[in-house]
Amino acid sequence: MRTHTTSSDPSGDSRGLSRRGFLTGVSIAAGGAALVATASHTHHVQAEEGRGPTPTDTASGELASQTIPFDGVNQAGIAEPEQAHLNLLGLEIKPGLGLKDMKRLMRSWTEDMRRLTQGQNPLGSLEPELASSPANLTVTCGYGPRFFDVIGAAEKRPAWLKPLPAYSTDKLENRWGQTDIVLQVCCDDPVTLAFAVRHLLRSSIDYVKVTWLQQGFMNADGSLAEGSTPRNLFGQKDGTINPRTSEELQQHVWINDGPTWQKNGSCMVVRRIFMNLDTWELLDRNSREVAIGRTLDSGAPLSGGEEFDPIDTKATDRVGLPIIDPMSHAARAKAPQNKPEQVIKRRPYTYNLPPDPAVVQAMARPDDKAAIISNVGLVFICFQQDPLHQFHPIQQRLSEGDRLNQWITHIGSAVYFIPPGVSADGKDGDRYWGAGLLESVKA
Amino acid sequence: MRTHTTSSDPSGDSRGLSRRGFLTGVSIAAGGAALVATASHTHHVQAEEGRGPTPTDTASGELASQTIPFDGVNQAGIAEPEQAHLNLLGLEIKPGLGLKDMKRLMRSWTEDMRRLTQGQNPLGSLEPELASSPANLTVTCGYGPRFFDVIGAAEKRPAWLKPLPAYSTDKLENRWGQTDIVLQVCCDDPVTLAFAVRHLLRSSIDYVKVTWLQQGFMNADGSLAEGSTPRNLFGQKDGTINPRTSEELQQHVWINDGPTWQKNGSCMVVRRIFMNLDTWELLDRNSREVAIGRTLDSGAPLSGGEEFDPIDTKATDRVGLPIIDPMSHAARAKAPQNKPEQVIKRRPYTYNLPPDPAVVQAMARPDDKAAIISNVGLVFICFQQDPLHQFHPIQQRLSEGDRLNQWITHIGSAVYFIPPGVSADGKDGDRYWGAGLLESVKA
Repeated sequence: MRTHTTSSDPSGDSRGLSRRGFLTGVSIAAGGAALVATASHTHHVQAEEGRGPTPTDTASGELASQTIPFDGVNQAGIAEPEQAHLNLLGLEIKPGLGLKDMKRLMRSWTEDMRRLTQGQNPLGSLEPELASSPANLTVTCGYGPRFFDVIGAAEKRPAWLKPLPAYSTDKLENRWGQTDIVLQVCCDDPVTLAFAVRHLLRSSIDYVKVTWLQQGFMNADGSLAEGSTPRNLFGQKDGTINPRTSEELQQHVWINDGPTWQKNGSCMVVRRIFMNLDTWELLDRNSREVAIGRTLDSGAPLSGGEEFDPIDTKATDRVGLPIIDPMSHAARAKAPQNKPEQVIKRRPYTYNLPPDPAVVQAMARPDDKAAIISNVGLVFICFQQDPLHQFHPIQQRLSEGDRLNQWITHIGSAVYFIPPGVSADGKDGDRYWGAGLLESVKA
Repeated sequence: MRTHTTSSDPSGDSRGLSRRGFLTGVSIAAGGAALVATASHTHHVQAEEGRGPTPTDTASGELASQTIPFDGVNQAGIAEPEQAHLNLLGLEIKPGLGLKDMKRLMRSWTEDMRRLTQGQNPLGSLEPELASSPANLTVTCGYGPRFFDVIGAAEKRPAWLKPLPAYSTDKLENRWGQTDIVLQVCCDDPVTLAFAVRHLLRSSIDYVKVTWLQQGFMNADGSLAEGSTPRNLFGQKDGTINPRTSEELQQHVWINDGPTWQKNGSCMVVRRIFMNLDTWELLDRNSREVAIGRTLDSGAPLSGGEEFDPIDTKATDRVGLPIIDPMSHAARAKAPQNKPEQVIKRRPYTYNLPPDPAVVQAMARPDDKAAIISNVGLVFICFQQDPLHQFHPIQQRLSEGDRLNQWITHIGSAVYFIPPGVSADGKDGDRYWGAGLLESVKA
C-alpha cells in the first residue's frame, strides 16, 4: 500500500489541489491585500504499477484514473475545489455504543476509503468494477457534539462545537439538523459516488443510521475553464473570496492550536439554504446585480475591476451615492478591516429537487406573486478554525441586512469537528480518522 | 441561425452520435448475426463563427463547448448514448387548453431549445451565462394518449399509445404513471441541465404542470473509455444488446410507415424500476452472474466470448447442463430467433435517492433478511417503433421468469409518441415539435 508523503509537508501543498487550477488566479486575502498565488496543482493521475484495480475490464476514461491522495496532514475534500457531485451523510450513532465501537468504525472506514479513493477495491467488496473509477473521490469525516459523549470524553469537546446562535432569518427544519457524525463524499463521477456511499453505509450498518442525505452538484469536470468560479442557479459566481493558498488555509481553515488531536483539523458548518428561484427570476439583471454587489457576467465588484479584485464599498457615483449598496450580499459578507479572521473556505453545492408546493410555499413571503415551480437551493458547506469567530459574525451581518434575504432562507444547520488527516503508516495516532482523539481517551 | 443538414440525410448519421464511440465496437443484430459497425462519430464541437454565446465571461472548459445538433430527421436524445445526467419531466396539460395552445407551446419550446442546446441564450432569458455550457444538452419531447384528445384528434392516436398490459410482477404507483407530455432532458453538466429544465417550465407555466420529475445519472463524461457500456448499481453492464448502427435504428427505432406526421418519430416507454441493493448484495458473485447470464467484469455471455458476442443459450457444460440458466436475465431478454423485431433502444439511468424505509419496505419480499439502507433503481427509458411488438413481449418474458425479479420491481409505467425531428427552415410541417401532427388537425 502506498504511503503518502504529505504527512511531512506542513503546507499540505503536495496534495493535488486543483481540478480547476484555482491557484492560477489572483487570490484575495481577508483584509483585501492581493497575493499572487505561486503554484498550480493538477490532480494526481494514478500511474504507479500494482496500484490499479484488478478486474479485467475496468473503467478507463481519462477522468476515471484521476485520484486525490487520501492520506495527508489534513483530510481531503476541504482545500480542493468542489468535485461535480456531493453526497453529504448526516449519521446518528446507534444506542449502546461507546469508545471501542467508534475506534472500530473509524478504523474500518479509514481503511476502506484509503483504498476506494485510489481506485482499489475495499476489502470485502464484491464489486471491483464499481471501484475502478475513483474520479477524484474524497471522503471527509467529522463529529457532532454528541460524538464526544458517546466516547466518554465530553470534557474534550471544543467550546465551539454546539448549535450556532439563532439568526433572525432562520427557518430551521429539524430534519436537516445536527447529527453525531458527518461524511462528506465528493466525486466527479456520480456512479462511483453512489457506490462509495453505499459501501460506507453497508460497512457501518451496526453502528450508525442515516438521519439525512443531502445531495448536490456543481459544474461537471471539463465544463468550466481552469480557474473559473462555478455558478449557482441564481447565476451568481459562488466562491470568489475563498482562501486559496496554503498560507491562507493555514491562517483560516486548519486548527493550529489546542490539543494535539485537534491540530490540522478543522470545523465544518453545514447550512441548507433554500433559494426562491421563482421570485428571483422576476428581477431584472440590474436589480440582481445590485442585490449581489457584483456583475453577473464576470463576477467583478460593481465598484470596478475584475472578479478577484477587492470590492470598494466606499466608491461613489457622480452624485455621491455608493456604487455598491451597503446592504448588498458582497458588502455584507466582506470581513471588516479590523476583523481579518472573518474568512471561511466555502464548498457550496446546488440542490435541485422535484418541485414540492408544500415545501416551497412554506418559504414564500406573503407578497410573493410568482407561481411555485422550483425547489432549489444550496448545501452550503464551509470550513474554518472556529465558527464563532468566522462563520457566525459573517452570518450575523448577512441575516441582519443582506438584500438576498428576500430570496434565500436557511432551513438546516449543523456543526462538526473535522479531525486532522491520516497516514497509512502513522505512528502518532494518525493512522485512522480521529485516532488522536480516540486514543487519548481513557477507556 | 444555423440550419442543420441532417434533414436531407436519411441515415441520420450526420448527427454526432457517440460520446463513448459506441459504434466502434462490434454490434449485434436482433437475430444474433454480428455486424461490424463502419463508422465512428464524435460530438460536434461548436466552432463556427457567430454561434458562440454572447456574455463576456462564459464557461469555457472542453466539455462546455460540446453540442449535439438539435435539428435533424429524428429528435436528438434517442440514438445518442446517454449523457451523464437525466431530468425526465412528466407533464399534465392544464384544463381548458386546445390545439392552438399546443401549437404555441411547441413552437416556443422548439425555438428556445434549438438555441439552448447550441449554447445560445433563449430569447427572453436573462441568464446568458447559464446557457453558455451546452455540454451535449438534448431535449426530447413526446406525447401521451390524452394529448391527442386535447388537440381534438383522438382518431389520430396510434393504436399502441395506451397503457401497457399489466405484468404479474408490477407494483405500479400512480405517482409515476402516464402523463400528457414528456420532456427528456439530458446533459453532461448538471448545472446546465437544471437551467434547461427551469427554462422549459418557466416558459410553459400557463400550459402545463409537473406530475413527476425523474432524475438519474450515468457515468460522467470522461469516466468511461470510448465504446464501454456503462454499469448500473448492480454492477451490471447495461445496454450491451442495444441497436447501434443507422440500419439497426431504422429497423427497430424510427417509425417508417403510417401517416407522414409519424414517420421518423418513435415510441418511448418509461418504466421506473426499483432495485433492491440490500438483498442483491447478499449474493456471492457467482450467483449474481448466474442471475444475469453474463460475467460481471467484462459483460461477456457465460457461454463464452466477449461482451458483444451473441449469447448461446444451447451451450452445455461437461455434464450436459445449460451454461446459461434459461431463467437468467440475458436468456429471457433475448429475442427469439423467429422474432427479430424484439429489439429496443435502451437509455436507462440510475436513480439514487435518500433511503426511505417506508418506500423500500413496500418493495421487500417477506423473506428478505437485509436491513434496508438503499433507495436505488433505474429510470428505464427505451425507444422503438411499436411497444406492443417490442417492449411488451420482452417484458412479458421477463416478468414470467427473469431471475432478477427477486431483486427488481417495476413501480412506474408510461408510453409516449415521439414526433419526428425538426428543421429550422422546415417547409413541410417540421419546423417545430409535432408540427406535422398539429398542422394536420382541422381546427
